[in-house]
Amino acid sequence: MKGSESLLATATAAGVQACFANPGTTEIPLVEAFDQVPGVRAVLALSEGVVTGAADAYARMTGIPAMTLLHLGPGFANGIANLHNARRARTPMINIVGEHATWHQPADAPLNSDIESLARPVSGWVGRTTSAASTAVEFVEAYQATLQQRLPATLIAAADHMWGQGGMPAEVPAPPGRPVVDDQQVAAIAKLLSSGRRRPALLLGGHALSAEGIRTAARIASTVGAEVLAERSFARIERGPQIPPVRSLPHLPADVIKALDGFSHLVLVGARTPVAYFGYRGMPSFPLPNDLKVHTLADTDQDAVEALRALADATGSTAADLPSAERPQVQSPEGPLTAASIASAIVLTQPEHAIVVNEGVSSGAAYPAIAAAAPPHTELTNTGGAIGMGIPAATGAAIACPDRAVINFQADGSAAYTVQALWTQARESLDVATVICANSRYRILEAELQRAGADELGTVAASLTSLADPAVDWTAVARGFGVPGSRATTGEELLDALRRAHAEPGPHLIQAVL
Amino acid sequence: MKGSESLLATATAAGVQACFANPGTTEIPLVEAFDQVPGVRAVLALSEGVVTGAADAYARMTGIPAMTLLHLGPGFANGIANLHNARRARTPMINIVGEHATWHQPADAPLNSDIESLARPVSGWVGRTTSAASTAVEFVEAYQATLQQRLPATLIAAADHMWGQGGMPAEVPAPPGRPVVDDQQVAAIAKLLSSGRRRPALLLGGHALSAEGIRTAARIASTVGAEVLAERSFARIERGPQIPPVRSLPHLPADVIKALDGFSHLVLVGARTPVAYFGYRGMPSFPLPNDLKVHTLADTDQDAVEALRALADATGSTAADLPSAERPQVQSPEGPLTAASIASAIVLTQPEHAIVVNEGVSSGAAYPAIAAAAPPHTELTNTGGAIGMGIPAATGAAIACPDRAVINFQADGSAAYTVQALWTQARESLDVATVICANSRYRILEAELQRAGADELGTVAASLTSLADPAVDWTAVARGFGVPGSRATTGEELLDALRRAHAEPGPHLIQAVL
Repeated sequence: MKGSESLLATATAAGVQACFANPGTTEIPLVEAFDQVPGVRAVLALSEGVVTGAADAYARMTGIPAMTLLHLGPGFANGIANLHNARRARTPMINIVGEHATWHQPADAPLNSDIESLARPVSGWVGRTTSAASTAVEFVEAYQATLQQRLPATLIAAADHMWGQGGMPAEVPAPPGRPVVDDQQVAAIAKLLSSGRRRPALLLGGHALSAEGIRTAARIASTVGAEVLAERSFARIERGPQIPPVRSLPHLPADVIKALDGFSHLVLVGARTPVAYFGYRGMPSFPLPNDLKVHTLADTDQDAVEALRALADATGSTAADLPSAERPQVQSPEGPLTAASIASAIVLTQPEHAIVVNEGVSSGAAYPAIAAAAPPHTELTNTGGAIGMGIPAATGAAIACPDRAVINFQADGSAAYTVQALWTQARESLDVATVICANSRYRILEAELQRAGADELGTVAASLTSLADPAVDWTAVARGFGVPGSRATTGEELLDALRRAHAEPGPHLIQAVL
Repeated sequence: MKGSESLLATATAAGVQACFANPGTTEIPLVEAFDQVPGVRAVLALSEGVVTGAADAYARMTGIPAMTLLHLGPGFANGIANLHNARRARTPMINIVGEHATWHQPADAPLNSDIESLARPVSGWVGRTTSAASTAVEFVEAYQATLQQRLPATLIAAADHMWGQGGMPAEVPAPPGRPVVDDQQVAAIAKLLSSGRRRPALLLGGHALSAEGIRTAARIASTVGAEVLAERSFARIERGPQIPPVRSLPHLPADVIKALDGFSHLVLVGARTPVAYFGYRGMPSFPLPNDLKVHTLADTDQDAVEALRALADATGSTAADLPSAERPQVQSPEGPLTAASIASAIVLTQPEHAIVVNEGVSSGAAYPAIAAAAPPHTELTNTGGAIGMGIPAATGAAIACPDRAVINFQADGSAAYTVQALWTQARESLDVATVICANSRYRILEAELQRAGADELGTVAASLTSLADPAVDWTAVARGFGVPGSRATTGEELLDALRRAHAEPGPHLIQAVL
């Protein structure tokens, strides 16, 4: 069999089920192999930013790494921004980058470039195929690495190895689990929590924000008198009536310090120490009250849920009742839209078990505060700050979970980066409702300019933060890519548009005009 | 003055006139500086692929490097594909990448990444600011490097150096010229051309395809009995009644060998040795007839036009008449559109001194063959093979040359990469007519699959090369971004649509349905 066929056969054996692709000539042998070796579903996207963003969300939802198929250095490069987000989300995925035939590489053909240099900043593992016969083994290396490291792995696959005969499927060892936190660490944290005079907080991140993670942490907190917090930008959080609501840390460092004020200890559970998104004059990089002590129960690599289970045992919290939390009241939005009323409309209309992809940037912050009022759902956020993640991620989440509605709470500035993803939603008839918060500006930049001391924006600064002239007609763009669209300017219209979008199958886009 | 202000003041003193930008928080001090230090025009784009593609074409047209403003590693990464094309075009430009404040970098905030590793594959020079006071000097280093190397230069500008006081404008030395070819080399080529028994060919590339370069080469060719050829993917070519038409090399290696058959010597003038775009089984990387000898008059760094002048002297060609070349006859297209009839319609309607940006991929090949029939114009092509160059490049060319009409001969698959550029065309009221060759497929991939031996495409392969379901409505997408659009399905309709687009100011998009 060809090298490409051995790669796909091995991927199938490993349990890989989806490959998001924007192939070119050097990936032709892989394109052909999908027809020879069934098992992995190929999903076409119109640009590589869509490919990698979809693969990220797919793995966040399924736990199974997706493959991507990318065209040489420049094709890979187009996917880097969403790979950066995937890296921060600790998402496993296997990027297959078609490379020139080995004997053609020294000729420095037009598309030749240093793929390793591009791949390393966003990959935990970067490797190359060395022959058709060894391709499958090299795929397994990438597969093991991505699950071990929980970072994207990138396999550069030379065209002659892909089209060459002599390939054979490789054995796939059991996927590595997350390293377990040792007992002493659990005991030390248990002691700390039981003996604190002031109130400690548990900061959950990564997979600790699963239903079991949050419930276990809430039981511990209820037993020892702690609070449970969530990191600001999480890969995934679960919410529902059986899951105590968790407050997440705010965006600005001054607000983080305020939010953590009064706690004696901060225990990290799969989360990093809170870090300022940007460096602000007079603000520390790590915005923590002076007297707060930071401890780690589980780092971002470790099995944080298992650590919480052990900590529940050690603190005698296993049988504790879940704290009964007050759920926020959400008012039905009326009149002209605001960021807050868009969030309310989403919460009030969302179907059970929806997946909410929140790339609201300045508009999306209102959602987490009221999300506990919504039916059971999962929320995904932008973990790395590279904008243009939302529409691709909604696409990947819908491929991952065809039985669940996907709602994409989407800023307009970011939407413009990867709007091409709508075409894949139309092509695959995905049940995604995209809500564009159309404030026609880079609101976050305006805010930062004001924060930097600009009382009034200069002409150029105002122009460089404005998307108003012309205002993008998102419904027309959506229609162009095959997705029906509507406009809403009031709360009533938005509720109505959302209900219609959820009632009809397939993708919809709603331009929520702010 | 602030570091950011000293940078802009120095850029202005160096003659930089345009900055294509998609700024974020770390570029705020630079955004503010545009209002404090006038001189450089800031042009906003909705994604970084637009920014870098526009800067590439801007410098190809003006000879003056543009600045770009890009947001940290991920923002830079979105611009890499078109920087790859710029690198292959030997385009000078200065990328300013806003980076976290120096003291914040060790905290590894969400957007932190290895910018150097991302920048090196597409930059001849990569540097960092070291203080507010030295920022202007570091800008001058980047400026000198980009003009010396004719490759993009990337300056990573830390936020604290940009907002910090103590900046001062730096002196800008005269820009370095291209290295001159030495007399011995010219004499050797002159001797070779005069003594050959079989016919030599001059292969022009880079700036040798200027009007003077082509005319000088044509005089030499006419004197010594040679043929003048152009490289396949050129940064820029000039055409017009005073410029002898130049045949360019074909795409596929077998065709290149055929095109070069019968020549005794190939003299490179600012061009590289012809290289196969991709490696094909049984085909060499350098597709040359066995008995063809390759010589270099001027390499891609050197002053090829000056070398041609010297060669004209040395071969006694200075006073030679320009050969009178036959101009192709172009028939008015009728009935259903083909790639060839789209090219004919463009040629027959194009205004004098238009700039044609050709990213036709499979459809665009028909244009160069008949372009000599068009009024005087400039053609720009995709030099690096990273698709998504056309709409951004048309945007940059229109900013560079506001008095010239720009025609963008554009494949649909590539258009989907960077269609956001239409918004900047609308915002800046640019006189660009975009003709989308809408065959609703990755035709080039289908051709490559057939070339690889697939008689009939498998189901998945057919699906991965099809853009038909749904077919993109490019006029709707354009309208969404503020650009009026129309559809043409016949030659007559396309001629009509093109005439209307050229008659009205501002951007237009025509979906030419194949």
